[in-house]
Amino acid sequence: MTNPRMPADPAALTPAEARALFRAGLKAPTAGWSAGYTQANLIAVPRDAAYDFLLFAQRNPKPCPVLDVTEPGETSASLFSGDLRTDIPGYVVYEHGAPVAEVTDVTDLWRDDLVAFLIGCSFTFEDALRAAGVPLRHIEQGSNVAMYRTNRPCRGAGSIEGPLVVSMRPVPAAQVADAVRVTSRYPAVHGAPVHVGDPAALGITDLDSPDFGDPVEVRAGEVPVFWGCGVTPQAAVMASKSEFAIGHAPGHMAITDAHDTDYLVP
Amino acid sequence: MTNPRMPADPAALTPAEARALFRAGLKAPTAGWSAGYTQANLIAVPRDAAYDFLLFAQRNPKPCPVLDVTEPGETSASLFSGDLRTDIPGYVVYEHGAPVAEVTDVTDLWRDDLVAFLIGCSFTFEDALRAAGVPLRHIEQGSNVAMYRTNRPCRGAGSIEGPLVVSMRPVPAAQVADAVRVTSRYPAVHGAPVHVGDPAALGITDLDSPDFGDPVEVRAGEVPVFWGCGVTPQAAVMASKSEFAIGHAPGHMAITDAHDTDYLVP
Repeated sequence: MTNPRMPADPAALTPAEARALFRAGLKAPTAGWSAGYTQANLIAVPRDAAYDFLLFAQRNPKPCPVLDVTEPGETSASLFSGDLRTDIPGYVVYEHGAPVAEVTDVTDLWRDDLVAFLIGCSFTFEDALRAAGVPLRHIEQGSNVAMYRTNRPCRGAGSIEGPLVVSMRPVPAAQVADAVRVTSRYPAVHGAPVHVGDPAALGITDLDSPDFGDPVEVRAGEVPVFWGCGVTPQAAVMASKSEFAIGHAPGHMAITDAHDTDYLVP
Repeated sequence: MTNPRMPADPAALTPAEARALFRAGLKAPTAGWSAGYTQANLIAVPRDAAYDFLLFAQRNPKPCPVLDVTEPGETSASLFSGDLRTDIPGYVVYEHGAPVAEVTDVTDLWRDDLVAFLIGCSFTFEDALRAAGVPLRHIEQGSNVAMYRTNRPCRGAGSIEGPLVVSMRPVPAAQVADAVRVTSRYPAVHGAPVHVGDPAALGITDLDSPDFGDPVEVRAGEVPVFWGCGVTPQAAVMASKSEFAIGHAPGHMAITDAHDTDYLVP
């Protein structure tokens, strides 16, 4: 399959148009794509592990806000009319907690007992940040956002445990309050930051070496601001050595049919 | 066991003091009790039904906001340091969807495989309504709140389905906007009303005949305002003929150790 070209203006694509490109094999981080539409993290696990994952999400709502859950074996979701097996730009496949493949199509690996969770993604509030004048360095750079495992354990559920994962955006000191205020209004897609400044307090020793995604420049006068990240369930799959799971490739999100404003609170 | 007397000022009791009275056998609706503390609905189901209930709650967050979930067999919860089997003023026991007993102690009926869900309760925002000058007729009357099954189906999950249940408070027309504004700030305990006025549109034919709780007078110039109600999971137990469940007696809530303000959003 030939790799389709990057579209000239990914922000202008409808979710269906974006998903068609990914289905055709394009692999790209989705920050800035399909402006106004909600993006989501994927974690698909066997039905017999689904309760523990759903409870883990319920107990850790900042990193794991649940937007939608499929019935076992379903390949689309209420919020995602595409095909969950092909229409996300990248997937990571886990066996016994180890990532065993990173692919752009999981049709052959999907199982009848898989339950897919769509978890809110902070890309959803980036339009609102931009509108408030907050710069988005990873989009300026044309790179993926920077994501880090922290030293903060999530609250466990049954057999599932793992660390909080965060995304980081550098914010000019004078705009940190705006960034907090704007993102607070989107609790279903991680909401307010979990931490502002001082990466060491989260156990992050080197901002230039993210655990997922790309390094993002923090300039003089900017503060690193950390939001809960929907890669947290994949870190839990790894920490808990779950038998089988399929996640999205970090930063390569499911672009849903829901609108950002569906998750805006007063 | 002798029935302890009603305390002179139930609003002033700590959660531990209130729970001790209930443990000693007092049965009373808890609206207005332990001011400033979060009240919760109980639904306890066997572990093999817990996923469907948790997913049902996730899919119907207005009536079923999950505050806490126990591990199987546990008899207290993170938010409730009392004994879930004795410290709630009333319980309803269900077998195959039918209510088979209403009791004040379920110690003998608790099972090692029971998972207890604590679901947010609208009593939690009543202090804030009162502070905003919104009258609370059921407390003035010394009665239970009025609750109704509606004709609105919840979104099902696995084997679980059932109607939306609502609580109703009569609100003077000039204060409806205040009631909406105040309760919107408590999304974890049902949040904004699901419906204002026009009971017939919800399939409620007679406000004077609630399905749960007591009738509450609606005076001239007042509008019936309806909020999602945490009895919804019990209506689902009945509609779905669940094998076994224990719920609280409607209006007779679990008084938790959490503060109302823990669930207040900006």
